[in-house]
Amino acid sequence: MTSSDVLDTALALQLKEACELLMADLDHLLEVLKRRAYEFKDTVMIGRSHGIHAEPITFGLKLALWHAEMKRHRERLRHAQDTVRVGKISGAVGTYANIDPATEKRACQILGLEPSPISNQIIQRDRHAEFFTTLALVGCSVEKIAVEIRHLQRTEVREAEEFFSPGQKGSSAMPHKRNPIASENLSGLARVLRGNALAAMENVALWHERDISHSSVERIIAPDSTILLDYMLARLTRVLERLSVYPENMRRNLDLTGGLFFSQQVMLALTRKGLNREEAYRLVQRNAMRAWSEGSQLQELLPQDPEVAQLISTSEIAAIFDLNYHLKHVDTIFAQVFGET
Amino acid sequence: MTSSDVLDTALALQLKEACELLMADLDHLLEVLKRRAYEFKDTVMIGRSHGIHAEPITFGLKLALWHAEMKRHRERLRHAQDTVRVGKISGAVGTYANIDPATEKRACQILGLEPSPISNQIIQRDRHAEFFTTLALVGCSVEKIAVEIRHLQRTEVREAEEFFSPGQKGSSAMPHKRNPIASENLSGLARVLRGNALAAMENVALWHERDISHSSVERIIAPDSTILLDYMLARLTRVLERLSVYPENMRRNLDLTGGLFFSQQVMLALTRKGLNREEAYRLVQRNAMRAWSEGSQLQELLPQDPEVAQLISTSEIAAIFDLNYHLKHVDTIFAQVFGET
Amino acid sequence: MTSSDVLDTALALQLKEACELLMADLDHLLEVLKRRAYEFKDTVMIGRSHGIHAEPITFGLKLALWHAEMKRHRERLRHAQDTVRVGKISGAVGTYANIDPATEKRACQILGLEPSPISNQIIQRDRHAEFFTTLALVGCSVEKIAVEIRHLQRTEVREAEEFFSPGQKGSSAMPHKRNPIASENLSGLARVLRGNALAAMENVALWHERDISHSSVERIIAPDSTILLDYMLARLTRVLERLSVYPENMRRNLDLTGGLFFSQQVMLALTRKGLNREEAYRLVQRNAMRAWSEGSQLQELLPQDPEVAQLISTSEIAAIFDLNYHLKHVDTIFAQVFGET
Amino acid sequence: MTSSDVLDTALALQLKEACELLMADLDHLLEVLKRRAYEFKDTVMIGRSHGIHAEPITFGLKLALWHAEMKRHRERLRHAQDTVRVGKISGAVGTYANIDPATEKRACQILGLEPSPISNQIIQRDRHAEFFTTLALVGCSVEKIAVEIRHLQRTEVREAEEFFSPGQKGSSAMPHKRNPIASENLSGLARVLRGNALAAMENVALWHERDISHSSVERIIAPDSTILLDYMLARLTRVLERLSVYPENMRRNLDLTGGLFFSQQVMLALTRKGLNREEAYRLVQRNAMRAWSEGSQLQELLPQDPEVAQLISTSEIAAIFDLNYHLKHVDTIFAQVFGET
Repeated sequence: MTSSDVLDTALALQLKEACELLMADLDHLLEVLKRRAYEFKDTVMIGRSHGIHAEPITFGLKLALWHAEMKRHRERLRHAQDTVRVGKISGAVGTYANIDPATEKRACQILGLEPSPISNQIIQRDRHAEFFTTLALVGCSVEKIAVEIRHLQRTEVREAEEFFSPGQKGSSAMPHKRNPIASENLSGLARVLRGNALAAMENVALWHERDISHSSVERIIAPDSTILLDYMLARLTRVLERLSVYPENMRRNLDLTGGLFFSQQVMLALTRKGLNREEAYRLVQRNAMRAWSEGSQLQELLPQDPEVAQLISTSEIAAIFDLNYHLKHVDTIFAQVFGET
Repeated sequence: MTSSDVLDTALALQLKEACELLMADLDHLLEVLKRRAYEFKDTVMIGRSHGIHAEPITFGLKLALWHAEMKRHRERLRHAQDTVRVGKISGAVGTYANIDPATEKRACQILGLEPSPISNQIIQRDRHAEFFTTLALVGCSVEKIAVEIRHLQRTEVREAEEFFSPGQKGSSAMPHKRNPIASENLSGLARVLRGNALAAMENVALWHERDISHSSVERIIAPDSTILLDYMLARLTRVLERLSVYPENMRRNLDLTGGLFFSQQVMLALTRKGLNREEAYRLVQRNAMRAWSEGSQLQELLPQDPEVAQLISTSEIAAIFDLNYHLKHVDTIFAQVFGET
Repeated sequence: MTSSDVLDTALALQLKEACELLMADLDHLLEVLKRRAYEFKDTVMIGRSHGIHAEPITFGLKLALWHAEMKRHRERLRHAQDTVRVGKISGAVGTYANIDPATEKRACQILGLEPSPISNQIIQRDRHAEFFTTLALVGCSVEKIAVEIRHLQRTEVREAEEFFSPGQKGSSAMPHKRNPIASENLSGLARVLRGNALAAMENVALWHERDISHSSVERIIAPDSTILLDYMLARLTRVLERLSVYPENMRRNLDLTGGLFFSQQVMLALTRKGLNREEAYRLVQRNAMRAWSEGSQLQELLPQDPEVAQLISTSEIAAIFDLNYHLKHVDTIFAQVFGET
Repeated sequence: MTSSDVLDTALALQLKEACELLMADLDHLLEVLKRRAYEFKDTVMIGRSHGIHAEPITFGLKLALWHAEMKRHRERLRHAQDTVRVGKISGAVGTYANIDPATEKRACQILGLEPSPISNQIIQRDRHAEFFTTLALVGCSVEKIAVEIRHLQRTEVREAEEFFSPGQKGSSAMPHKRNPIASENLSGLARVLRGNALAAMENVALWHERDISHSSVERIIAPDSTILLDYMLARLTRVLERLSVYPENMRRNLDLTGGLFFSQQVMLALTRKGLNREEAYRLVQRNAMRAWSEGSQLQELLPQDPEVAQLISTSEIAAIFDLNYHLKHVDTIFAQVFGET
């Protein structure tokens, strides 16, 4: 048994255990995401593309989407664990010259590892590269959620906020100054995980039956990336668990565009009343522009437009401006994500 | 159906097909690796760690190890294909406001895609990041094989060479100047795949229900990384298929250290004859140092050393210096890799 | 003269010219940044840290800061140009075996290049790595400005907008839906430049007197990174040149926190009136909390608080709530940046 | 003075000092490189391209080339130091609202820093990104030298070796097994520096007047990258200082191709004797192929070829096979690098 047999098998045990912890972290995160997704399943807010208001969603949908993403990462981590959960006791160049293959099998069985079907002096580093890129991928989604929280906490938006304990540092003479520092911290750390993944990828192309250049890298990134991600998942879970959510602000922001996200349905209603597409478009556009420039509600302007009013009644208009139009499939989506009815 | 519904679903189809091609490339590569592994199963050569001679292996073992590695990549690609093989027809923010979830299911079924269980304006980019990092990981192993060929083709080593057709450019007044340019080319391209993977990872943390910053990236890296890897796998396969292998040079290099890789077994034999470990070590070391400094064969020096000669006979020594000691498990390893007996 | 002499010298000429174009791009960008900085020198807006309102600045300061940053990049590019503006005609391993050093000098002089003081088969790739990382660094700052514009264009903020021509595609029935797609595009492309820089860094450690692995990389990244950055700078310049700026919205947002950014000066004023720090803090905090929770203006609340009112008059309070307190050094800063008085 | 004023100015001081140490490291490395370059100025060895023998060089040329490269890095570090040697005491958003610009100037002067001409809450991160990419660039060249040493130490090449003290661990029953572990270690660490540089580049695009996401990154990479590079430069210097160089092995390897690198001059001599290019080529090729396949010396074969012998005398041939033909400009190159005569 050579020293590299021992070291590589020991590393496999460490990474296997690290995966165990990280999957437990993810399980906890998934649990919190699910709980809060149901809590805000029907909490309406505006969906945004390009940073610009698009159509209504619910805050629960956002959380459910994150849940689905983190579930994919759970599966990736499990796959990565299978990949690195591999021991090797096959001697200096992997030929079992001084050790029987059966010994490798036995030892691995005892340690809860799979024996590597073939190795040279070491276990091949494509396995570790998959492991570290997987950690980086999880980090990317942690960053994504963190960036979202930072967006929602902006002074102008303020639809959600990291929990801010009354005793927390922060000038109470500046009560608006609650900074999403946990989420900012997480955004940064994802960059470190990416950098480390890159180093792990460069570790694959070792020379001949091994060169030891991967070792100095792994002694840094193995503890750093696993501990960092553990910290990141735990901190993100805590942020989400205690996230302050402001449905009233969501509603206020939703109304900012005066209901313009109903334009399309108004147009459809007008065409159903006999207008051709062009005329319908002209009518809706005229009122939409006015609503936007005046900051008024499209629903209120439409009945004031004689051309519109003669075609659709106020109650028909009210029926169109129904948020449920946008949210009617929320339960379906939740069932698709959480597999429940 | 929004334009992002169309674009993202189209991208899924393209990446799915790209995966199909890349897996076919890998299948071809695996076939060639297996064929040549069996061809050189018993072709002895020195195994090297740190670039320094270690213990004997066979060239077939090297090829079998690459086979096992590429098989892992085959599985990773299949997983990545499952991950990106996902369509989405759920509207501007993923709420199915203007389209029925059943339509998405039907359309995806027709296209051979899975419907995304949840989406916002787009399919989430952790999927694509997994895809592009997987391409980069495959590239790392292509590089590893390419680097090995470059090593083996060095003037001083010359155990293998990229096929060099008689008519090929290259000064025939410099007949030694056959450069492993295909392998060098492949070594470089792996770097490009890694860079692109990184950009794909940065694409994950989009804002809110989507920002379009990922798009300019994907328009570059989606064609580039898939086409590059297709090219790399095809070129590597061709290099391996036609690789010139020089068993006689392998044998020559194997003998360079005068059989020092048998030192350990000599020591064990001496202790079995009654010497304690320290004395056995002293005897072997003395002859090993002489063999190395004189460039002679340890097997020939040992009988000349009276202290050794009185303990072990020449025929016993000959029995120790048997390459089969190192290669006795080659068949077992092949069975572990190729699942055959 | 070997083919690598020709190729490397040709590459030097290309990169030198690319730098020329990129520096011209930067000059144009700098000119636009300066012009618009002066245009908005006194246009007050809120400064934000952590995405949260902090203290007032002017939009001109933001532009001036970008100017200073791009000027640093101008200098970096010039340095990178000096680094790559190096020719080499020294033969297969750099010994001038078949060519006189004087010929190299003459040829380089004619081509406007410096002769490399020493080379092997090629010009060393640390030069090119500096070049490509410099392009990536410029890209990072392009991204930074692009991200800022995307922030400012958010529906809730809307302090600035990419120019949107009346005829531009975009539903006029959704007049709010003006997406900062140029800035999003630029944000993405910066990632590609970073990935390419990485590949260039991996090109440095070539083997012996050269291996050709850098070549496949450079054939991709040399045109891609230079053309991309040229495009990015030109597009960013155009975005900034025609950026719609909304001072009234800046003012509206500035007022969102009810003047809380004057808290500190109120406190100082109260201590000057004889209160100790703790008492002053208690008084300000009480009113600040009220302003924030009610959405009212601190300036209006203070005179209504008897404890405050007996110490400071309304006109004294008005004097404190003076934006000029925050902006008094804008001219100084402009002088520091633009070197004018 | 805000906390970010203090932190950023403190970081500037730390990075400035780190640069000081790293430049001293580089100075020491440069000194060693120069000393050893002159020591081996005329030590002939084969130059290699693509890993294949090309034409003769001297080991001193290799060292001189590294000297020139490290001198460029010295200059880059100096530039990077200028870039980060910048203090900032301008308040929460950089407006000097509560502090006079003159104070910033005075404080910076005392601390040996330049005052930033403009800042927001922090010093802009393009400065730090230049710093960390510069460290990574230096690392790339450390890796390049390390990779070269690993190549030269290969069992088949063995032209140089890391110093191996008699008492050093390593089986003396395997005296050939001296592994270039320091160089392998350095090869790996360069990857970590590259990963960290990437994280630093992603730190540039902060939001508005600052977001704090850069901070978690810098707390990791600032100590890690600076300390790592300090370690790397010191270790590389020690490796080079004590590098065992084997001129006799260099000479042995040089002779491996039987003097084929003189083919071109033989051809020229034959054409000077009246042969046309084609005939001359045919004659040289015939003997070159024989020398290569037989492992004999071209110089000895030529006089045995009647067609050649009737044109050139043995002494003329001897004059052609003169290594000085390849090395005649070594002094010139040294003068170009070290600026001496």
